[in-house]
Amino acid sequence: MAAAVASSSALPFASLQPNSSAGLKNAIPLSPPTFRATCPRRIPPLSCVAASTSIEEDNGRRGRYADESIREEAARRDHALPANFHGFSAWYVPFGPSSDPNERYSLDDVVYRSSSGGLLDVRHDFSALAKFPGSYWRDLFDSRVGRTTWPYGSGVWSKKEFVLPEIDADHIVSLFEGNSNLFWAERLGREHLGGMPDLWVKHCGISHTGSFKDLGMTVLVSQVNRLRSKPLSRPIGGVGCASTGDTSAALSAYCARLIFPPLSSCLPTVFHSHNSSNPSPMEPQSSPLIQTLMGQKTAAIEILQQFDWEVPDWVIVPGGNLGNIYAFYKGFSMCKELGLVDQMPRLVCAQAANANPLYLHYKSGWTDFKPVTAAETFASAIQIGDPVSIDRAVYAIQKTDGIVEEATEEELMDAMSLADRTGMFACPHTGVALAALFKLRESGVIGTNDRTVVVSTAHGLKFTQSKVDYHANEIADMVCRFANPPVKVKADFGSVMDVLRKKLVVKK
Amino acid sequence: MAAAVASSSALPFASLQPNSSAGLKNAIPLSPPTFRATCPRRIPPLSCVAASTSIEEDNGRRGRYADESIREEAARRDHALPANFHGFSAWYVPFGPSSDPNERYSLDDVVYRSSSGGLLDVRHDFSALAKFPGSYWRDLFDSRVGRTTWPYGSGVWSKKEFVLPEIDADHIVSLFEGNSNLFWAERLGREHLGGMPDLWVKHCGISHTGSFKDLGMTVLVSQVNRLRSKPLSRPIGGVGCASTGDTSAALSAYCARLIFPPLSSCLPTVFHSHNSSNPSPMEPQSSPLIQTLMGQKTAAIEILQQFDWEVPDWVIVPGGNLGNIYAFYKGFSMCKELGLVDQMPRLVCAQAANANPLYLHYKSGWTDFKPVTAAETFASAIQIGDPVSIDRAVYAIQKTDGIVEEATEEELMDAMSLADRTGMFACPHTGVALAALFKLRESGVIGTNDRTVVVSTAHGLKFTQSKVDYHANEIADMVCRFANPPVKVKADFGSVMDVLRKKLVVKK
Repeated sequence: MAAAVASSSALPFASLQPNSSAGLKNAIPLSPPTFRATCPRRIPPLSCVAASTSIEEDNGRRGRYADESIREEAARRDHALPANFHGFSAWYVPFGPSSDPNERYSLDDVVYRSSSGGLLDVRHDFSALAKFPGSYWRDLFDSRVGRTTWPYGSGVWSKKEFVLPEIDADHIVSLFEGNSNLFWAERLGREHLGGMPDLWVKHCGISHTGSFKDLGMTVLVSQVNRLRSKPLSRPIGGVGCASTGDTSAALSAYCARLIFPPLSSCLPTVFHSHNSSNPSPMEPQSSPLIQTLMGQKTAAIEILQQFDWEVPDWVIVPGGNLGNIYAFYKGFSMCKELGLVDQMPRLVCAQAANANPLYLHYKSGWTDFKPVTAAETFASAIQIGDPVSIDRAVYAIQKTDGIVEEATEEELMDAMSLADRTGMFACPHTGVALAALFKLRESGVIGTNDRTVVVSTAHGLKFTQSKVDYHANEIADMVCRFANPPVKVKADFGSVMDVLRKKLVVKK
Repeated sequence: MAAAVASSSALPFASLQPNSSAGLKNAIPLSPPTFRATCPRRIPPLSCVAASTSIEEDNGRRGRYADESIREEAARRDHALPANFHGFSAWYVPFGPSSDPNERYSLDDVVYRSSSGGLLDVRHDFSALAKFPGSYWRDLFDSRVGRTTWPYGSGVWSKKEFVLPEIDADHIVSLFEGNSNLFWAERLGREHLGGMPDLWVKHCGISHTGSFKDLGMTVLVSQVNRLRSKPLSRPIGGVGCASTGDTSAALSAYCARLIFPPLSSCLPTVFHSHNSSNPSPMEPQSSPLIQTLMGQKTAAIEILQQFDWEVPDWVIVPGGNLGNIYAFYKGFSMCKELGLVDQMPRLVCAQAANANPLYLHYKSGWTDFKPVTAAETFASAIQIGDPVSIDRAVYAIQKTDGIVEEATEEELMDAMSLADRTGMFACPHTGVALAALFKLRESGVIGTNDRTVVVSTAHGLKFTQSKVDYHANEIADMVCRFANPPVKVKADFGSVMDVLRKKLVVKK
């Protein structure tokens, strides 16, 4: 292996050899040196060799100096490359049709709305990305999964070129998020959905702060961190959001990695994230929101990756503020456009019947969008009557031949509890998506053998009280037909066995 | 790629080419067909080609029939191989010195104790495993990370040969556990531990049921499932445990994947897991316990894998019943003995001062073990005065030049809360391990640049009440010096900004 490094380091480009793309051999220019396939262990990555010859080569630290952190190593590695080596880039553009086709903004601009007051989108320079074939991106992303090389161990930043291509690794604020469980819902599919063999749940909520918001927040807070190094008219004094739930938990965790120095008496800019519930004292802002969607879209790419880059037939996403469904659309469509896969899944947005403006809009044949007043729902994170991303969601559904479904409180709690009986620990939002699946199976829209992915957005541990209430049959006007109430028993072995005998043995 | 398959399928052995082990080319006999490096996408794995030629080759299902589940695919793949093709095997043996060096039991025996009444251990047939070099195992395990090929997508079963080598894939009960976040504790290390650049937290609690118990339970319940297919004197009617916490949650989730048919009036065997707290109506049993440790040890292997098979200097594990520290020892030592790595980390067991029998034993120079009466601790899962695995833990500590530390209630809650301030969401057990780290840094035992891994055993979401109490300063006799109490503010933008101004701006 030492010989391979010696010869490679003499080349201006490293000869990376993607696993299953023999034809690409020697044709691929220098890329981040975490490409383990040809980057031998315990030897400095090739760009490090170029940058410095004084690194101890066998110190067991992948070329790091003894007192160097992975972030410092990444900074040194990046600085050894010409700035913006590959020319990957991305900008804000107006979402949807625009009067000015050239309207665009740098991601480093603090801009909240398009010139016409509309939503923003992020557009990547596809011509630069498309210089590499789809197989290259697949192999690159695969080579980074779950490792500790900064920042690529993260499920979001392992796709850095598709997220924020221009940010320095040194500015990234990551908790190694993503890489979440794609769970095979074997028993639920077999017993309760007509023998579905290919049903999966993407557990985005099995995460650091217990919800999928980690995926977006790493991007938003990283971009804030980058902006702090730029000349700004007003310094950024903090990051805030209006939320009582997942967003605030994720924002707190990520901002805890930053240090905001005390500011002098001028009023700082507070870079605020979107709220996920209405009404709120802060108006939702489009630019921070679309940044979080850049992170959330990596969950779609991760699903493809976990299926060895095969495309599922259906992906069902719970929808409230409706950014998430668009994020999934963006992830899937980017992979299709760049040749990582050759088709798109059909998307289903699942809403609580108590907060169903998209569902009503869909049912009207898209002719008539009206915000609603959201009623209380156990799926509290999607209790939103006037969703910010309504236009984005309509676009995602229309482009994928998608569907919108709804679930009543009883339907969503029953679906959640039935899933739990088969080994899950689902949140009520997952219950909404599962209830939609039940309906679409019943109507035959989703076929028995369709590969179907249900997106789970939060950990069940955030919803223990509603589970306790359900299983104790203490929810008003709900039958709770899958309730599994606790059995009280004296704390001795005989009493326990007596109960088990009754439960397990059929008397003859 | 089609050409590559055609030529390979004509061979009795597939020509697997481990990524960085060119010397092995063509020398490796048939192994599970998930080895993606040379198993082209969208084309049936090689063993499937041998087993059947009627599979649609390009149906986008990796060689699966349209109505076939991943489990059925795995069963077909396994049945295409001669039974026990490689001769990998493992047995129960007495733990520690035995009067009969030949005493051993099949893992399919229902045996609770050695002939002398002592603990059991599991021994693998190292001579069979050692036919493959360490680089082979590294590449094989790497190739399986986080995928959906049954059962190898699991972090536990991706190391199946090192866990239960003889179990059929078809009997495995897996929720795709493991593959948990190895988190870089950047800010905690830099600001609070004297500039440590290489501090990590293995978040085993970011999991399906919120604790590391998932890792063990998949092994125990899979083995139970296997036993149900064997002739037994009494049928297995259920699986039980005595636990109020992590063990019961994990056992429930995994058993929810099984169906126990109603039994006739004979009393069934209830295959019970160990308890993790004393006293209990069920006596802890050695054989189910050691099975769970086989799963937990994969967390150690996963740490090595995430570091690209580099060995950390220190691994700190919270200890109560003390199985976990031995599981980590087993994982690390197996990788060393089989050449995956060339050294061992030093292990630290961290106990709550309120339940510290191992610590007292260590301090006595191992001369005098006495169980203690455990007092209440926030680290409730390790509130154990008479640990089942005491002998296993002593062995693990002695063999690794290890250390035992302890943490008071105040120390563990402070450590947990300080970690949270830097972006974690730790549980009190993690607090115990972190408090031990603080002490060992202060005494200089752990050096600034030592690569150190703290094992986190549960998700912080399981301990929200103690966090609320701490931050509200409502814990008796505790200063709560890192408390961050909530600020009440009127729900309007101006009031929020007024508070932020006070917090963020230094008045001149």
